Amino acid sequence: MKNICYAQSGGPTAVINESARAVIETAQQHPTHFGTVYAGLNGISGILKEELINVYAEPKAHIDGLRYTPSAAFGSCRYKLKDVASHREQYLRLLDVFDAHNIGYFLYNGGGDSQDTAHKISKISASLGYSLQCIGIPKTIDNDLPFTDCSPGFASAAKYLATSIREAGLDLHSMAATSTQVFILETMGRHTGWLAAASGIAQDEQNSEPHIILFPEIPFQEEKFLAKVESCVRKNGLCTISVSEGILDVSGKHLLEKTEADAFGHTQLGGVASVISTLIKQKLHLKNHWAVPDYFQRAARHLASKVDLEHAYAVGKAAVDFLLAGKHSVMPIIIRDSSSPYRWHIGEANLADIANQEKFLPRDYIDAEGFHITSKCREYLSPLIQGEDHPPFHLGLPQYTRLNRQLMTKKLPPFE
Amino acid sequence: MKNICYAQSGGPTAVINESARAVIETAQQHPTHFGTVYAGLNGISGILKEELINVYAEPKAHIDGLRYTPSAAFGSCRYKLKDVASHREQYLRLLDVFDAHNIGYFLYNGGGDSQDTAHKISKISASLGYSLQCIGIPKTIDNDLPFTDCSPGFASAAKYLATSIREAGLDLHSMAATSTQVFILETMGRHTGWLAAASGIAQDEQNSEPHIILFPEIPFQEEKFLAKVESCVRKNGLCTISVSEGILDVSGKHLLEKTEADAFGHTQLGGVASVISTLIKQKLHLKNHWAVPDYFQRAARHLASKVDLEHAYAVGKAAVDFLLAGKHSVMPIIIRDSSSPYRWHIGEANLADIANQEKFLPRDYIDAEGFHITSKCREYLSPLIQGEDHPPFHLGLPQYTRLNRQLMTKKLPPFE
Repeated sequence: MKNICYAQSGGPTAVINESARAVIETAQQHPTHFGTVYAGLNGISGILKEELINVYAEPKAHIDGLRYTPSAAFGSCRYKLKDVASHREQYLRLLDVFDAHNIGYFLYNGGGDSQDTAHKISKISASLGYSLQCIGIPKTIDNDLPFTDCSPGFASAAKYLATSIREAGLDLHSMAATSTQVFILETMGRHTGWLAAASGIAQDEQNSEPHIILFPEIPFQEEKFLAKVESCVRKNGLCTISVSEGILDVSGKHLLEKTEADAFGHTQLGGVASVISTLIKQKLHLKNHWAVPDYFQRAARHLASKVDLEHAYAVGKAAVDFLLAGKHSVMPIIIRDSSSPYRWHIGEANLADIANQEKFLPRDYIDAEGFHITSKCREYLSPLIQGEDHPPFHLGLPQYTRLNRQLMTKKLPPFE
Repeated sequence: MKNICYAQSGGPTAVINESARAVIETAQQHPTHFGTVYAGLNGISGILKEELINVYAEPKAHIDGLRYTPSAAFGSCRYKLKDVASHREQYLRLLDVFDAHNIGYFLYNGGGDSQDTAHKISKISASLGYSLQCIGIPKTIDNDLPFTDCSPGFASAAKYLATSIREAGLDLHSMAATSTQVFILETMGRHTGWLAAASGIAQDEQNSEPHIILFPEIPFQEEKFLAKVESCVRKNGLCTISVSEGILDVSGKHLLEKTEADAFGHTQLGGVASVISTLIKQKLHLKNHWAVPDYFQRAARHLASKVDLEHAYAVGKAAVDFLLAGKHSVMPIIIRDSSSPYRWHIGEANLADIANQEKFLPRDYIDAEGFHITSKCREYLSPLIQGEDHPPFHLGLPQYTRLNRQLMTKKLPPFE
């Protein structure tokens, strides 16, 4: 009987731990098939160091608490395995660690880069004859994973952003007559506009916020944008703007180019709201405020979407079901059957097809002018943010779980 | 029988509309004493324009909905009345408007500047023999009003900030091993450190966030701060920082001096988090993230404190009770009887004593080193953030009320 190794990777979400809980609970339901469940401390980087958390040593209350706890409770990482050809020793080390702890199943919970990692491990284990079933579990607030209708984590960030722009919009509406007339929200999302689009769902018959959305998929044209802001303020007395951190100018350059890049070679974004703010102040002379919620949008478990939690649980459970079915090198995906009423089921995609692909906002989700979402986009987004699942509060604050993270005794020499 | 004029002033909060609801409900309970309730559209600036909302024309569902709605539902303003001596015509105009609409009671819901306005109106009406009872109603997320134990609005912003830093802290904890090690939250609060201090309540036996708090009351010393961050990262592998927008260097200069000032001559702050971020990156070479929640912290009704709502209602009700008791030129205040169990009652303070005073964080609420709050501060803060009062959700988002704001027919010529 082989053990399972589960690990979390990339930026956390409000619901990734619900996928972890599903993995643990589902595995426990099959005690004759699976041994124990280990979790890599800080994703693949901990596995390389043979830092394996004994999940079954956590009290049941901790595992139950994962449902309500944002962040990656087992630790995550930004660590990309290098090419097999040039860094074969990394892969051999991983298999050594797996072998030393009798691991026959590897579940990697992350976004596109992480699925690439899972796929590489799957390939080399097969080529070396090491028996390992690799399954990816989708996760990313950016919603840029291909094949799956949405990525767990996205919907809760969407709910947070839409709620926040609605609240800030009401605030601005209170003040615009004598003071601030423009409010700018900067969303995450890297190269794709899903999160910026999600804020657009706050606009309805009662509420007009956000008035303008800036997507990375639409090149930023300063004059056209400023004219739009000016006309919005003239008409409504105010203007709320959602801007994606990843917007590009017509030459394809980031509006806020930062020099520092992360381990994947990605530029760390953040701060474009202040660029837009300065532009509006200098060119239109309009007083404005801007907000950068940064981590708050992906960690706001206090405002999670219930549908998102259901998705997160379902993909975690499906990953273990896939193991039971003998599958490997696949990732469970969410397939939408109908938007209204909302119906979905779990399908699968090959890791080989997923790796390093980004799913952009389709052009028909953005209106002709390029400054808002279409009804088709609304129809897509709306079911995802439905339902609340308030965490328990203790002494006025959400009560989140911190795991003991008890590590297994190491059996191998250190690895540099 | 005279009518009441109620108006909202200054930056909105998550609960100011609960004070409005209390005013309306309490006035309605005394139909033989009060005529109708009008609300100034956009505070005093609307009253000058004779823009009076007929509150009783709003459907009851709208008034009930005020409990759950952030922002200033009747519109607010940043508008300071000039000196009586030099701008006597403004005051005469106000009294003309009051007279034209048979208004004998003026309730002004705001912070220190607004109480100054209420006081000035009170004085001139008395000197001119116009019968007007002026009552202030406290409100400010900054918590800088004197006399009152706390200001309605503060506690909900406190709960939002403490929740947010806890959530971001968990996120950072997930990533710090291989990526971001420092997270910076910028809070509002102008010249006082109450909101920055409030984030400190998130630290408890289970949670260490925030590790460092920067208060405006403690001059910012770059070297001492950087040494503290470095030692925190060395010890914990990460560091979370709350920084007040109003921190000053040792020469008394804002870290981020902006040139633009609002109608009160206040500098518009915001953006100091990025200054701290750059400092940490350049001097300590630590990857960091920063968040500026801006309006979100004062508009986050979805995370309001129940105690705060109770306070907001109580001061609104007390204002009308004060009218019934024949009082004038006073403001209801919250007096704490005991912190544990939390007990409080309503008292009063004279507007003359309140105007233009700022209450700073007492030195014994800040630890000796100047980087965190003391247990005395905790004892003060903890009761304020207790209890939740989730707003109704509709289609996945909080359902907030937008008033019709039906204006009374004007009876006077326009006023320039």
